Amino acid sequence: MMEAEAQLIAQAEKQLGPRAVVTDPKEIEPWVSDWRGRVHGASPAMLAPASTEEVVAIVKLAAEHRVPLVPQGGNTGMAAGATPPADGSAVLLSMRRMNRIRSISAENRLAVAEAGVILATLHDAAHDIGMRFPLTIGSRGSCTIGGLTSTNAGGTQVLKFGMMRSLTAGVEAVLPDGSVHSGLSGLKKDNRGYSLDQLLIGAEGTLGVITAVALRLVPAVASRVVAWTGVESPMKALDLLRFLEARTNAVEGFELVPEDSLQLVLKHIPGTRPPLSGAHPWHALVEATSADGGADVAAELEQLLGAALEQGIIGDAVIAANEAQAEAFWKLRDEISEAERIEGQTLAHDVSVAVADMPRFINEAKAEVERKFPGVIASGFGHLGDGNIHFHVRAASHAAPDWYEREGAAITHMVDDLVTAAGGSISAEHGIGQLKLAEFERLAPPGRIHALQAIKHALDPLGIMNPGKLVP
Amino acid sequence: MMEAEAQLIAQAEKQLGPRAVVTDPKEIEPWVSDWRGRVHGASPAMLAPASTEEVVAIVKLAAEHRVPLVPQGGNTGMAAGATPPADGSAVLLSMRRMNRIRSISAENRLAVAEAGVILATLHDAAHDIGMRFPLTIGSRGSCTIGGLTSTNAGGTQVLKFGMMRSLTAGVEAVLPDGSVHSGLSGLKKDNRGYSLDQLLIGAEGTLGVITAVALRLVPAVASRVVAWTGVESPMKALDLLRFLEARTNAVEGFELVPEDSLQLVLKHIPGTRPPLSGAHPWHALVEATSADGGADVAAELEQLLGAALEQGIIGDAVIAANEAQAEAFWKLRDEISEAERIEGQTLAHDVSVAVADMPRFINEAKAEVERKFPGVIASGFGHLGDGNIHFHVRAASHAAPDWYEREGAAITHMVDDLVTAAGGSISAEHGIGQLKLAEFERLAPPGRIHALQAIKHALDPLGIMNPGKLVP
Repeated sequence: MMEAEAQLIAQAEKQLGPRAVVTDPKEIEPWVSDWRGRVHGASPAMLAPASTEEVVAIVKLAAEHRVPLVPQGGNTGMAAGATPPADGSAVLLSMRRMNRIRSISAENRLAVAEAGVILATLHDAAHDIGMRFPLTIGSRGSCTIGGLTSTNAGGTQVLKFGMMRSLTAGVEAVLPDGSVHSGLSGLKKDNRGYSLDQLLIGAEGTLGVITAVALRLVPAVASRVVAWTGVESPMKALDLLRFLEARTNAVEGFELVPEDSLQLVLKHIPGTRPPLSGAHPWHALVEATSADGGADVAAELEQLLGAALEQGIIGDAVIAANEAQAEAFWKLRDEISEAERIEGQTLAHDVSVAVADMPRFINEAKAEVERKFPGVIASGFGHLGDGNIHFHVRAASHAAPDWYEREGAAITHMVDDLVTAAGGSISAEHGIGQLKLAEFERLAPPGRIHALQAIKHALDPLGIMNPGKLVP
Repeated sequence: MMEAEAQLIAQAEKQLGPRAVVTDPKEIEPWVSDWRGRVHGASPAMLAPASTEEVVAIVKLAAEHRVPLVPQGGNTGMAAGATPPADGSAVLLSMRRMNRIRSISAENRLAVAEAGVILATLHDAAHDIGMRFPLTIGSRGSCTIGGLTSTNAGGTQVLKFGMMRSLTAGVEAVLPDGSVHSGLSGLKKDNRGYSLDQLLIGAEGTLGVITAVALRLVPAVASRVVAWTGVESPMKALDLLRFLEARTNAVEGFELVPEDSLQLVLKHIPGTRPPLSGAHPWHALVEATSADGGADVAAELEQLLGAALEQGIIGDAVIAANEAQAEAFWKLRDEISEAERIEGQTLAHDVSVAVADMPRFINEAKAEVERKFPGVIASGFGHLGDGNIHFHVRAASHAAPDWYEREGAAITHMVDDLVTAAGGSISAEHGIGQLKLAEFERLAPPGRIHALQAIKHALDPLGIMNPGKLVP
């Protein structure tokens, strides 16, 4: 351990007490690698403040001793943005003890949650007052509000409710100079200078530590219906979405699934069954909801899917008969990554292009990648209505165990080039973190990189806020 | 004219041709004062680029010669943010020639409009394809998309659709180093670093020149209904809004009007008539719309207002029988400022507090201001559902002609203190510009001012982008 770190740790212990300073390597160990196990870091301590004031004290100590902080919530990020460097030069800042819901109101449609509140806890708290926080992702049982906000998380309900940026009414954060930005007033209108709230959302902890967030709530779901449809192509799936959206506001989930991915799930995930009797090259899962108890969304969706079938937009459809079947349909979508993992080595890319361009992109990128890397299987699945798919490339069945290390970078390079040529983003919802930093620098316009560096340096001149992440 | 400015003007003329460089003082004169006529500036030239490339050339010349630029759209701002300094040290940058709608699509629900497109023009273009750009303000016939975005404008439909920030899908801007930030890709999801789009929205041209904006469209209005209600108090008005919002999604406008303001309109504005037969201390205008041709919003609103009447939430209500009457109701709200102007001297404040706190704030602020400044009449009217009112203070009838100059600052000081004590904003939708700069600096936390200054200096180290505005 370096001298500066030792001093910071000693002073933090003195100021905040032993509970806020973890130095036992065994307690730290689960938190220094990213959850995919790709990146392994090290840290001499994990600081765990219980209040905004304690975060202020820690940030001031970090500045005094020039020791970088790596803020971390549930450690469920996809880009290793909360993983400390391997040389142990930074200290982990766990926000998990700041886990109070400070206020929640159905009347104001707002909740103020501290950074360490777990998403599922917020879901429950909103449910208890007849409301709903609509963003959800697979890691809802462990991801935190601070992490979700710092990475501008997405998920499966973005189509209707947007990403975290759309659902955030304000942010409280400790800035690198130790001052507190208080954006929790709940003002609907406030034009007093640059929006620091917006700058901190998606900044991955590089401009300050988010300590609490004011979040927008929506009325609870009164009825929900999930349907599975078989379609000829991604274009037909998009046609279906547009057909539905022109006729109802009820659609809030729309997920594209290739036949090949469905087959993998059916092969590897116990208890799964095909939802349709015939075979279809592509599938779309549709979720429709209503907050109005009187509305019959099931009947509405059934009627609309019937019309879509008649018009040849879809080849077949089935509506979940009950909640258990609805969950079973979602499972077919949610377990794709797990089924791929069981099948073999997979390379994941979280990319977006304009919605209208996505069907063509999926087909062309698949063809080009499979041509250039013979034997691999490429497929795009996910949030078609957001122009965001997870473009996964699976190793050939005969691939060597080091395929990922040998071929991964070249394949990712190619996928990122294709995305960039299509005017898209190499990070739709997962962020840049460490894992995408080199590709971001390679492909972003120099003016953009320069602007990001200028902002980072202006607000964090000492470089104590999660250095080596997001900003090349 | 200073040497540096003369060189810039000569080179701009050489590079861009005479049409892009206006030096005739008579042509410049209408644009160097703010439209309220409060602030008078001067400029040796008005540059008028016709393309993003021409803006790049101008920004590079400005940097080379260290001559500040003052970007300007329709010059309808409320805070003199587009008015050049009086010493003639800056050059006006008129964006009005960049007035193309580059693309507009009902399918993608997006329009890309250049900075100089007039709001009413965009309204018409959206209407032509069966869509709608829902933000609207009084100056819609002359304000521009660039100005609306740079000031994060609000207006009367914010309740349902949000401010410009909510309706902006991306921004194209020329940054102070002459690089072009291209955020017009129309990606719904993009997590590649800090959001420069969000930073530029509301930045009042101090971080770069917005040249084009991707804007979200919504389906056109199929039916609209406007009602006028009489209520006992601002609290009852808010009760009415909450009663309606719990039962319908159709409400998109909700404006609070005090009896006193209504009487001024009836007194001074020809052709106006009281909408209700009895007298009420307060009034609320309600606008409900539907994009669904089958919905009968008039019947729905009538039924809901009937129930509100029965429950004692409102004292009376009338629904406009036709479009002419709907316009007449809106006129009673829209002409308040004009009626006040005819009546005498008025001091305007555009403030916000949390929605739930607004009724009490209106009453308490009125009482305190009228007590401390005997004879004045204070009243709050406007966007109650956004927690945003225009808090106007009228001079006593016997006030001297220089009342505004003598008392204005002290009254504004007091109002701003009351707003700040209530956790509110001294600029809800009008921005800071020049007019609110001193009060902003007086009342904002030092950490916030420091962060804004750091960002400004980082992106515009030469200080060529609208200096003296927004950032103290």
